[in-house]
Amino acid sequence: MPRYAYVNGRYLPHAQAAVHIEDRGYQFADGVYEVVPVYKGILVDEAPHLDRLERSLKELRIGMPASRSALKLISHELMRRNDLSHGFLYVQVTRGVAPREHAFPEHARPALVMTTRQTKPHGEEMLRQGVKVITMPDIRWKRCDIKSISLLPNVLAKQKAAEAGAYEAWQVDAEGRITEGSASNAWIVTAEGAGVTRDASQAILNGITRQSLLTLIREEGYDFQERAFTLDEARAAREAFLTSSTSFVLPVTRIDEAPVGNGQPGPLFGALRAHYLEYMAALGEGE
Amino acid sequence: MPRYAYVNGRYLPHAQAAVHIEDRGYQFADGVYEVVPVYKGILVDEAPHLDRLERSLKELRIGMPASRSALKLISHELMRRNDLSHGFLYVQVTRGVAPREHAFPEHARPALVMTTRQTKPHGEEMLRQGVKVITMPDIRWKRCDIKSISLLPNVLAKQKAAEAGAYEAWQVDAEGRITEGSASNAWIVTAEGAGVTRDASQAILNGITRQSLLTLIREEGYDFQERAFTLDEARAAREAFLTSSTSFVLPVTRIDEAPVGNGQPGPLFGALRAHYLEYMAALGEGE
Repeated sequence: MPRYAYVNGRYLPHAQAAVHIEDRGYQFADGVYEVVPVYKGILVDEAPHLDRLERSLKELRIGMPASRSALKLISHELMRRNDLSHGFLYVQVTRGVAPREHAFPEHARPALVMTTRQTKPHGEEMLRQGVKVITMPDIRWKRCDIKSISLLPNVLAKQKAAEAGAYEAWQVDAEGRITEGSASNAWIVTAEGAGVTRDASQAILNGITRQSLLTLIREEGYDFQERAFTLDEARAAREAFLTSSTSFVLPVTRIDEAPVGNGQPGPLFGALRAHYLEYMAALGEGE
Repeated sequence: MPRYAYVNGRYLPHAQAAVHIEDRGYQFADGVYEVVPVYKGILVDEAPHLDRLERSLKELRIGMPASRSALKLISHELMRRNDLSHGFLYVQVTRGVAPREHAFPEHARPALVMTTRQTKPHGEEMLRQGVKVITMPDIRWKRCDIKSISLLPNVLAKQKAAEAGAYEAWQVDAEGRITEGSASNAWIVTAEGAGVTRDASQAILNGITRQSLLTLIREEGYDFQERAFTLDEARAAREAFLTSSTSFVLPVTRIDEAPVGNGQPGPLFGALRAHYLEYMAALGEGE
């Protein structure tokens, strides 16, 4: 069965899905993207993902490639054609095709690409044992709040993690404070028992899963703070975990070889993951 | 006459030159490039450009897409087909096509794209009056020595310059020192008469024109220093200029609205531009 991709107005067999070499996404990383989780056939947090896509585009002064309703129609049609039940929808928008000049072209039409990927839920072992993260200097640019495709530093960070047998790399700013992972937000429960995740600023990408989990945390009345935390605090933490659109909530049980707390996924992680799964399940029932 | 582009083994009419949507250059900015000036039909500093291409690829652990001799053959064939006499050759190499995962794919073949552009030499007016630069914070990542396609911050800087009626934006680091332009290196002649350009480090792209000009400067015995210089030093400078593969050596006569020196291109600029043009002309005679 050929998998389809949507490219600038057409549903194409994935293997034939192409863009022009002068698409500014290819020459300048001049574009943004979203990864929307699909759970039991339903797009999770579709509206906040579209909100963030709009925000990223606005920050870069790229126009919306289509109305929100058209984007929804296209994404649902692509999911239908690809028979997608569990995985994610990938949406990329660039400034479009124009002769190569750094400054914005006068007459480019934003380019739109969508793909889907079927994935399996995380194995039980990963949830039971937790994952390892390494830490490294954050060498990225100063506008990480924009979900741009300018991802080369993230690629290098994730590769470094992979080579260390780790799931993710937590990046550390010049003040010794953790910003986030290469493709996920970082959370700890301090030695004193306070939940902490970095506050949203230009230093991190404000994850949609992060935002949804914070809403659940507030609803449930847990003690959580949004603030910068140091690598030392993370090393002394009772618990650690990460969030992302593809991982949801995953326990972190080792940071740079040292165990976090007792080396097992912690109780607060367990409670929050359960809340998050209930939240996703409830989305389906609402249809 | 159709202009040709070279894409992964084929010479294609430019309008049909495309890459797959999962080329990592498009999704991750996972690639590098070179812009090689062409002057009277001759590639200027071809060897140093190829050296730097190899270095950038090595830093990112992307393989060479073809041997150096093959790259030369392709570039010359493309120039021949496009009847290129004055302008530049653009070479882009990415990690290739693979399902979207941040970490390096196991089995991707580096992708190679080449294009050419015919341009006119800079007008006499620009050389006589000089250009204006604005200054702004340098928000780029910490590996600007790699000539990567992760150029979104450079795009935003150049756009800011364009909107201010300026030719370029000089970026200023956290210590108040100028790093470089969005697509060119920055030079000044201080109030005391010393020529200065930022030393090559991970904070700047070590321009080929910069390197060639430094060689000429040493040969001619001018007093020049490679070191960081502050925005204040630039504002107090007698002369300023910029270098790039497409601009060669251009006088900067205004920084953020204030005139540099007496507001006219300076004598040291004039001498260096003349040396550089002689250098390029001599390349042609050597054939």
